[in-house]
Amino acid sequence: MSEHERALSEREGSQRERGATRADRSALAPAGLSEEGAESERERRLTETVVASFAGTPDERLRTLMTALTRHLHAFAREVRLTEAEWAAAIGFLTDAGHITDDRRQEFILLSDVLGLSMQTITINHAAEGDVTESTVLGPFFVAGSPAIGQGGDIALGAPGEPCWVEGSVRDAGGRPIPGALLEVWQADDDGLYDVQYADTRTTARGHLTADGDGGFRFWALTPTPYPIPADGPVGRLLAATGRSPMRAPHLHFLVSAPGFRTLVTHIFVAGESLGGDSVFGVRDSLVKPFVRSDGPTPDGRVVDGSWTRVRFDIVLAAADRG
Amino acid sequence: MSEHERALSEREGSQRERGATRADRSALAPAGLSEEGAESERERRLTETVVASFAGTPDERLRTLMTALTRHLHAFAREVRLTEAEWAAAIGFLTDAGHITDDRRQEFILLSDVLGLSMQTITINHAAEGDVTESTVLGPFFVAGSPAIGQGGDIALGAPGEPCWVEGSVRDAGGRPIPGALLEVWQADDDGLYDVQYADTRTTARGHLTADGDGGFRFWALTPTPYPIPADGPVGRLLAATGRSPMRAPHLHFLVSAPGFRTLVTHIFVAGESLGGDSVFGVRDSLVKPFVRSDGPTPDGRVVDGSWTRVRFDIVLAAADRG
Repeated sequence: MSEHERALSEREGSQRERGATRADRSALAPAGLSEEGAESERERRLTETVVASFAGTPDERLRTLMTALTRHLHAFAREVRLTEAEWAAAIGFLTDAGHITDDRRQEFILLSDVLGLSMQTITINHAAEGDVTESTVLGPFFVAGSPAIGQGGDIALGAPGEPCWVEGSVRDAGGRPIPGALLEVWQADDDGLYDVQYADTRTTARGHLTADGDGGFRFWALTPTPYPIPADGPVGRLLAATGRSPMRAPHLHFLVSAPGFRTLVTHIFVAGESLGGDSVFGVRDSLVKPFVRSDGPTPDGRVVDGSWTRVRFDIVLAAADRG
Repeated sequence: MSEHERALSEREGSQRERGATRADRSALAPAGLSEEGAESERERRLTETVVASFAGTPDERLRTLMTALTRHLHAFAREVRLTEAEWAAAIGFLTDAGHITDDRRQEFILLSDVLGLSMQTITINHAAEGDVTESTVLGPFFVAGSPAIGQGGDIALGAPGEPCWVEGSVRDAGGRPIPGALLEVWQADDDGLYDVQYADTRTTARGHLTADGDGGFRFWALTPTPYPIPADGPVGRLLAATGRSPMRAPHLHFLVSAPGFRTLVTHIFVAGESLGGDSVFGVRDSLVKPFVRSDGPTPDGRVVDGSWTRVRFDIVLAAADRG
């Protein structure tokens, strides 16, 4: 520990006490509505100086973003009376997140996910419109160019898990079928891993097909099971420190696109499973579907050794020109 | 560009338009005071769900921090109507910052600095108290264990620049000298670089000494000159995009410590230089000092080839028990 770090840490005690008292009071007020009177004029002036430094930003939208970001970051620090040790811990957290992030691991998206920022961004950009199917998080495991499986095909491609018959339709808001709509589907296997999380180069539990002339689709997948988001990095440590579970509610990913329609990024979730604690806040009531288990004959005559499930998902796409 | 990225980018146009309109209106209101009525109940509910997920955090302070951070992040996204492309750009920015950060480069501290968050944290933790010398940012270039230079010594140690005679005193708030106070001093050289920014292992333009029996000190340094913060990474690109200068106001760093006193982290700035645009917002009026140029005899008889400057810095430390 350097002289400086030692000095900072000595100071921490008394500051921490003051900080907690202030924060307890201001935590009762909505963000940005903390007791301005108790904060110093120096603090307010500094925020305004930083805001003013962005006044010459040529792009108006960027200026708006940087101004709002500055105000909220400063309001956060002032409201909680952020200590220097806490600031240093935040720098360390971001540094660790940066160093664990590579082509196969994205800790910043994970951070955004567990803070609900990803889902909030989706909510902001996809207002609920009538019967249009709701969106949820894309997640880090989508891969463009998945195998073509065709109607009635199986996306498992050897991945372990209970077979699941998925059927449904793709329609517009007026109920008209959208023949040829592209459905891209992917999921974790029964061991809780996506293919890209394995060290080898397998392609499993993902595929694409197109809706038939009536907008219908049907294929085999796996019954979704719960799995944890990657928890061996700083985000995992944050979840542990805050008593939160890293588990995702069981789900099957869909990306549905067709010319003239807004691309839909969504999941379906398994009714009856624990959905409230989804670590990335992705669950929407309208996306929770019954997966009905059976050990009888299958819809297409496939012979299954053991049980299988069946789920229906009727998809409604918004017209592209509706924003 | 993947199917999904293409779809996101197609959507961007109309969303961007809506976002700008909303943001222009809400930019007029202080952070957190945007038009709540225009935001959907779904967005509010999601924020509350994320806040509730931190309710079980065992450490009360961590719970306070995560709750406030969540509220401000969500309020920011809702206020500016953050688009999915902007969210993705932010993820990319943090990823780039993480990848350029190593043992010699700290892009996250630099980001905090240019957003004024570092200086705000210092302002929050160091209230102005009477005559106590004000604090400013530590910066990334402090090194513990600098060379002992002794009274009248020269911290330049071969670094290029105009010689500068620095003298002053270290006292308590009652005006009593603090003999033996440790002064650690460092600065950029005339080429705008700190020793640790060179590829070799030189130690220059830094050193330490202790105050004499009257709390006095005197040493040679270099007249501070303006220099840019490292601008070849994402933070530099942000400054360029927002029309901001990367230049720091010329300054000399001090870290002053003594048993029983709060450690002081500060700079002195050169009066008459351009101080308003300091890229990290570190300037405080009380820390701006006249550096008087001369080509006459020096205070200690040192023979200087050309001009030299002289500055006085009288330091007042706060008692440690005053928080």
